Amino acid sequence: MAENQMMGKQSIRLGEAPHIIGNASVVGKKEGEGPLGKAFDLVSTDDFFGEKNWEAAESTMQAEAVQAALGAAGVKAFQVRYLFGGDLLGQLIATSFGLEDFKIPLFGLYGACSTCGEALSLAAMTLSGGYADYAAAVTSSHFASAEKQFRFPLSYGNQRPLAASWTVTGSGAFILGKQGGKVRITEITTGKVVDYGVKDSMNMGACMAPAAADTIYQNLMDLNRMPADYDRIITGDLGYVGQEILISLMKEKGFDISNVHMDCGIEIYDREKQDTHSGGSGCGCSATVLSAKILPMIARGSWKRVLFVPTGALLSTVSFNEGKSVPGIAHGVVLEHC
Amino acid sequence: MAENQMMGKQSIRLGEAPHIIGNASVVGKKEGEGPLGKAFDLVSTDDFFGEKNWEAAESTMQAEAVQAALGAAGVKAFQVRYLFGGDLLGQLIATSFGLEDFKIPLFGLYGACSTCGEALSLAAMTLSGGYADYAAAVTSSHFASAEKQFRFPLSYGNQRPLAASWTVTGSGAFILGKQGGKVRITEITTGKVVDYGVKDSMNMGACMAPAAADTIYQNLMDLNRMPADYDRIITGDLGYVGQEILISLMKEKGFDISNVHMDCGIEIYDREKQDTHSGGSGCGCSATVLSAKILPMIARGSWKRVLFVPTGALLSTVSFNEGKSVPGIAHGVVLEHC
Repeated sequence: MAENQMMGKQSIRLGEAPHIIGNASVVGKKEGEGPLGKAFDLVSTDDFFGEKNWEAAESTMQAEAVQAALGAAGVKAFQVRYLFGGDLLGQLIATSFGLEDFKIPLFGLYGACSTCGEALSLAAMTLSGGYADYAAAVTSSHFASAEKQFRFPLSYGNQRPLAASWTVTGSGAFILGKQGGKVRITEITTGKVVDYGVKDSMNMGACMAPAAADTIYQNLMDLNRMPADYDRIITGDLGYVGQEILISLMKEKGFDISNVHMDCGIEIYDREKQDTHSGGSGCGCSATVLSAKILPMIARGSWKRVLFVPTGALLSTVSFNEGKSVPGIAHGVVLEHC
Repeated sequence: MAENQMMGKQSIRLGEAPHIIGNASVVGKKEGEGPLGKAFDLVSTDDFFGEKNWEAAESTMQAEAVQAALGAAGVKAFQVRYLFGGDLLGQLIATSFGLEDFKIPLFGLYGACSTCGEALSLAAMTLSGGYADYAAAVTSSHFASAEKQFRFPLSYGNQRPLAASWTVTGSGAFILGKQGGKVRITEITTGKVVDYGVKDSMNMGACMAPAAADTIYQNLMDLNRMPADYDRIITGDLGYVGQEILISLMKEKGFDISNVHMDCGIEIYDREKQDTHSGGSGCGCSATVLSAKILPMIARGSWKRVLFVPTGALLSTVSFNEGKSVPGIAHGVVLEHC
């Protein structure tokens, strides 16, 4: 068995690079009407997903995404040794209730909207460490449960500043195995909390861009790569505002990523028609775009190597109301065609 | 390098069993007055820990615990490749803000009060997988921030039923390394969500006992052991009520653990004098008792092998108010004298 290697300060190279052997995306109505609408596996016309409240709706999305990903991988739930899951809600209730029926050992994760990167990292490390033959990663967010959690009840009808992003209603699930599929996870760069002191919870892009820059820079240094060594460097949900900041921060660090940068929050909605301001966000944003767009592009060889960097803004209504800043975190995962 | 092995359905044996090379506990005034008072590393007479609010106090506890554990291990923060941390607050704010100054790559975890087991499991897997030379695990809870989060403002002065537990104000931190120290983590049994449909958030012991029973049973089956193969089987925070249920559930499964069972929630307070009803609970309960009592007993060889099983009750005020049950989860870690 090839050994895992520590690379530089905060990256690792996986000795037995795990393959993504099944993936699925489940989204709400608005996401289905966006540019990637036809690429999602399941688009619900009912944002309640048949449930009585938004939290249960989010749980149902997660369960459906995992079920569909298992189906795509041709793997049964009992074969999966570890499930890495998370969401944005307090105490991860979407995950706890969404995944309980699978009866798979569960590691609950919280990294705000970076959780998809965190879950994929740990699932991949688990496989390449010899702890499992199959592991799963799943994350979700729901516009309505997130607005209720972080901002205002929907019926209050608050105005949204142009820097605000729109929480994606969606869940993406991924089954990792030792062989099969056309995409593998080769390296991982785990992020630190990066705090530039930004206090504007309606401008998540600005809060997260410094964390994204930190992780991307460290990835390039640790692996001795240039931006052009990646076909795309793809952040989670910086949106239009955060993208500008990221590109500028990277220039200050000596790297021009403007030619290869892409952001899932920008991809998922139509800026002109969908009134989503700075773009999409949420644990479900990067996860569904990974499943619906990024993995297919890598699988068919259009992209050979991608640095996928979901980005999270670390705050709660309590920390925000107590005057705390909104630090960011970003977890990098290198995906390669195989 | 010895290879990691999958054992039975949901356990693993670590090829290079990591050592706990430094640990520390930081607690509040009430915990300092309890039976383990003198064994904690730091007892604060001020439950605000010099901060302006309870959440910041909890962050400060975490930072102090990690700092003290690093000191005990003789390791600098920059040598630690991964920090696994978590707490009970929505969006893990105690962890995000408590750990940001260490600038260590962070995996945020949520497993309710089982998080100490989750963090130790992943930190140990990370080391034995060859991903790090040093990794850290830290968890915390604070009576006041938890009451505010889950129940009532303290000034409301609500009555507490006898089945209720008392959230421990405390944080425990652990530094894992490849050698040094007298305790190592040899096996891990990761828990599933177990839901018996209990809906009483004032009786956490009853919610968590089925999950503890599930993990302990699976550990015994996977590793082909009997309860007597452990000097102690130690749950996190079942308390008096949960302990009775656990012993009875285990009897139904064919194992009598009554001679070896211990519960951190029972150990931490004096039932007669401290008016804490069913016992202590919280992410800080099992973590501080592990650091102050369990590790010293194993280190000096009084106990050769212990199954440590922090237990978590998965709920939020939202899930509870929406009529959801309170499922449990429990993560098992085998600790051995070396």
